[in-house]
Amino acid sequence: MDTHVKTGGRPVKPYENNRARMLISCPDGPGIVAAVSQFLHEHGANIVQSDQYTMDPEGGMFFMRIEFDLEQLEDRVDGLKEDFGSIADKFEMQWNLYQLSHKKKLAIFVSKEDHCLVELLWQWQAGDLDAEISMVVSNHPDMKEYVESFGIPYHHIPVTPDTKPEAEQKQLDLVNGKVDLIVLARYMQIVSPALIQPYRNRIINIHHSFLPAFVGGKPYAQAYERGVKIIGATAHYVTEELDGGPIIEQDVQRVSHRDNVSELKRIGRTIERVVLARAVKWHIEDRILVHQNKTVVFN
Amino acid sequence: MDTHVKTGGRPVKPYENNRARMLISCPDGPGIVAAVSQFLHEHGANIVQSDQYTMDPEGGMFFMRIEFDLEQLEDRVDGLKEDFGSIADKFEMQWNLYQLSHKKKLAIFVSKEDHCLVELLWQWQAGDLDAEISMVVSNHPDMKEYVESFGIPYHHIPVTPDTKPEAEQKQLDLVNGKVDLIVLARYMQIVSPALIQPYRNRIINIHHSFLPAFVGGKPYAQAYERGVKIIGATAHYVTEELDGGPIIEQDVQRVSHRDNVSELKRIGRTIERVVLARAVKWHIEDRILVHQNKTVVFN
Amino acid sequence: MDTHVKTGGRPVKPYENNRARMLISCPDGPGIVAAVSQFLHEHGANIVQSDQYTMDPEGGMFFMRIEFDLEQLEDRVDGLKEDFGSIADKFEMQWNLYQLSHKKKLAIFVSKEDHCLVELLWQWQAGDLDAEISMVVSNHPDMKEYVESFGIPYHHIPVTPDTKPEAEQKQLDLVNGKVDLIVLARYMQIVSPALIQPYRNRIINIHHSFLPAFVGGKPYAQAYERGVKIIGATAHYVTEELDGGPIIEQDVQRVSHRDNVSELKRIGRTIERVVLARAVKWHIEDRILVHQNKTVVFN
Amino acid sequence: MDTHVKTGGRPVKPYENNRARMLISCPDGPGIVAAVSQFLHEHGANIVQSDQYTMDPEGGMFFMRIEFDLEQLEDRVDGLKEDFGSIADKFEMQWNLYQLSHKKKLAIFVSKEDHCLVELLWQWQAGDLDAEISMVVSNHPDMKEYVESFGIPYHHIPVTPDTKPEAEQKQLDLVNGKVDLIVLARYMQIVSPALIQPYRNRIINIHHSFLPAFVGGKPYAQAYERGVKIIGATAHYVTEELDGGPIIEQDVQRVSHRDNVSELKRIGRTIERVVLARAVKWHIEDRILVHQNKTVVFN
Repeated sequence: MDTHVKTGGRPVKPYENNRARMLISCPDGPGIVAAVSQFLHEHGANIVQSDQYTMDPEGGMFFMRIEFDLEQLEDRVDGLKEDFGSIADKFEMQWNLYQLSHKKKLAIFVSKEDHCLVELLWQWQAGDLDAEISMVVSNHPDMKEYVESFGIPYHHIPVTPDTKPEAEQKQLDLVNGKVDLIVLARYMQIVSPALIQPYRNRIINIHHSFLPAFVGGKPYAQAYERGVKIIGATAHYVTEELDGGPIIEQDVQRVSHRDNVSELKRIGRTIERVVLARAVKWHIEDRILVHQNKTVVFN
Repeated sequence: MDTHVKTGGRPVKPYENNRARMLISCPDGPGIVAAVSQFLHEHGANIVQSDQYTMDPEGGMFFMRIEFDLEQLEDRVDGLKEDFGSIADKFEMQWNLYQLSHKKKLAIFVSKEDHCLVELLWQWQAGDLDAEISMVVSNHPDMKEYVESFGIPYHHIPVTPDTKPEAEQKQLDLVNGKVDLIVLARYMQIVSPALIQPYRNRIINIHHSFLPAFVGGKPYAQAYERGVKIIGATAHYVTEELDGGPIIEQDVQRVSHRDNVSELKRIGRTIERVVLARAVKWHIEDRILVHQNKTVVFN
Repeated sequence: MDTHVKTGGRPVKPYENNRARMLISCPDGPGIVAAVSQFLHEHGANIVQSDQYTMDPEGGMFFMRIEFDLEQLEDRVDGLKEDFGSIADKFEMQWNLYQLSHKKKLAIFVSKEDHCLVELLWQWQAGDLDAEISMVVSNHPDMKEYVESFGIPYHHIPVTPDTKPEAEQKQLDLVNGKVDLIVLARYMQIVSPALIQPYRNRIINIHHSFLPAFVGGKPYAQAYERGVKIIGATAHYVTEELDGGPIIEQDVQRVSHRDNVSELKRIGRTIERVVLARAVKWHIEDRILVHQNKTVVFN
Repeated sequence: MDTHVKTGGRPVKPYENNRARMLISCPDGPGIVAAVSQFLHEHGANIVQSDQYTMDPEGGMFFMRIEFDLEQLEDRVDGLKEDFGSIADKFEMQWNLYQLSHKKKLAIFVSKEDHCLVELLWQWQAGDLDAEISMVVSNHPDMKEYVESFGIPYHHIPVTPDTKPEAEQKQLDLVNGKVDLIVLARYMQIVSPALIQPYRNRIINIHHSFLPAFVGGKPYAQAYERGVKIIGATAHYVTEELDGGPIIEQDVQRVSHRDNVSELKRIGRTIERVVLARAVKWHIEDRILVHQNKTVVFN
């Protein structure tokens, strides 16, 4: 294969070794920003970017994303986390710290339609998705050579009504503990609760409609039937409720009476791939916090 | 009141006296365009604009909008219609002919929220809605002086559960046979089937969501609850099914987690008024054909 | 006149008495966020919202908008400002503190086209523009009664080549020191440097093109001539360079070959009024910082 | 290579053998539509789709696109064209007839940036671009293996100041008379007048700005410098004037102060590839007529 498609994934840039991001959710109250920024300052960190959002000043939830540089981060990160514990306890924080040098590992699930996969791989090899793609999993063999040409392992796990439980177990064995994020890139099977549970808010699906319109199967046929003038796509985290999880991103495009179902599908493909890639990028960049069934996206 | 707001509605321009539009729907078949254009040519008419659309070349429906000039149209229009009968019969056409000099008469129904009404009146007095506004009907007295300052009659018909049938009869008496189009500009009552029937495909409602998402009441609260990233509005013809009629136009705007219900409403107001005004404009300009529960819009 | 249109401007809400916003620009460096948030925390303030942006972590500029609540703000604000001086000095900050209870005073300049003025007044009376409209200034008398029906003074100052200097002096006398923001709502005269200087970054103009395309006069005619497929409008702060000041907001809409100059103008009016109103709203809400010839907008 | 990427280009569908499109431009006058549709009807053709546009009813230009089915088209097309001559003469028409079974042949020119090429090849192999891709021409060798994996010949023609005339001659020899359309998919060299002349209105370029803003080199750097809030891309036919040819399609995306030049480029790549692919698709489907320096696009 050619060198063109093999360059995917970009190396850690020097500044990334000392950069980290924190995502924090907690009940709002006085002094949170002061405490966190004071803590970082005292530990020698320099805040590069900070976003916060309070759902309601009177007793609502507080969300924060903070990006900072700290010399010799790798050596000091464990101490930093430990020291942060008392602040976290005081404000009842849920929090995570991500180092930019530790790239997230992705598994992409796909069926026969390739546009979302092609987009993700193209953005990845252009350096726009700063993650490792650890594997592609599919219930069809079609994309095997294409995926492998990028140097990415391809696992063909057929799914039939009979073999479903067994197939799901195989999937779980493949990914569990080995990847950080699962992307359903037009994977046309319903994923098992056994997979959803350990990957709560870490499985992103692209639904080919503007949710909550047209939940379930054949959304473009439904859209055509209803005669809508705009179609859309929705990227969301997967929950046990079909097409009901927290929405990350949506986008739309204008259509007209001239567009039949097959035209809607064609137009929709471009929306789907762009929306999915945005959602994946934001997840990789630690821009998304989930509260109840909604997302806060700092972008 | 000042002269500024009284200029609404524009006079018939000279060229409009001799201009007409035909809207035609029929089963598709060979020779329709040829027959219609030949007919018009032989009668001395000059086609200014023509749009057509065939749902499916093999046995589908054919839709046409044709705009033409004919000298001394007013005197010749009856003869023209009569002559067209044989073509219409041959192709089983449903058709209408509209003269531009005969401006459509509108009734606008409104409740307390004024933004859609203000938009329609502003566009009307700017000359962008080429129609007569015959009356405004409301279940509240709030906008009376404002509307009357434009020289437009305002009918306050209160609606309570007890007086609903009586109020609907009053509405029907006011409009029936006197207006060509009813615009529900955020009129928050369900209109009576007795009104819908004679005004089939001639009542335009603005629904404050991107239908079919969030049918029914409080769509912005529903949208907030679901955490959508885009909100919209939908203009549709009113049928007996709530928010289920043929969609004329939709538009959307991006929102974020920062937007609470009241922000969504504020953003939504701008979408609603623009979408409703577009739909009304297209209806006035005879750009909309309805087939089953969908619209063909030649715009 | 009716009560409907007279309700413009909303009263100070209770929580606003104790709320303020700070806008800060300074060279980036370690500890800024910590210092500011610590300062506010020690003074008993609770941060409600905070946004920051660093142009370039290595030696760039740092921008911050911080919104906070402080009990008995009115009595304590002077002390707060004084105390903040040492932090401001240390980090070489340019900064401002705005109290929400002190509503900004606006002068709107308009010529003959009314759509931007109508929009601003409609949004204002709907409570969406949280400011006082102190006056409308125009070189034409046309909108006098309309504006006065809102209870807003209207100053008709004709401008001719001969009287221009004198007219500009009158304008300056009217606004200087009396209003906080001047909005050129399709005011078709070039404003005097004598006005620009004291109102640096406080005069907002709406230009009816997607700048920097079609600088200067007749932009819709220029757009038609060039055959663009999208038209736009641009709100910007006024500088001595014609249509060259810092861009605050832009928006666009798709057009086609069917749209002649007059259609472009009609479509453009809707873009212009929405873009201008957004820019004015953001300025009123202290969301805009200017650096060199560009804006940072925290929205 | 795998079968996945080799399926590009779709076979002629049965109905396409008998389908053709006519593009007509002429001075407007009475009876044109009637004459054309009557002519087609008398020759046994069935009009499937027809679009027309008159620039100005009084003495303007008339544009028409008409799609029709005719049994045994291949055998009868020469006769049809000959018979049409008298109508064409009478109305001073410029016209072309395209058979759907004769697929257009494309040459794609590319330099180092691959996103537009990748998009075109993906849409082509998905069957959305109904043409033959005869060759890819590049001044760099980078994409050779990638392109050849689709079974498409790749011609590497280096261009240096010294070898430019010679290189241009090679290009001309490669394409002239052999391809119907040249697509500059981020080809970073100025093409020679010797190529433009025979391919008048048949070379499509993608410019990475919202023209006419930011003509020439480094448009994203220019856009960043000016602080625009929306960036765009423009597909246009190439003329002798740099970035000055007839605009076919444009699209835009919102950006903010947070986006530096490299982010603008990243966002822009998605606009560029979509806009270029749309323009190419419309050209292939005979939807574009050029008049003076503007396009009429029937889509």
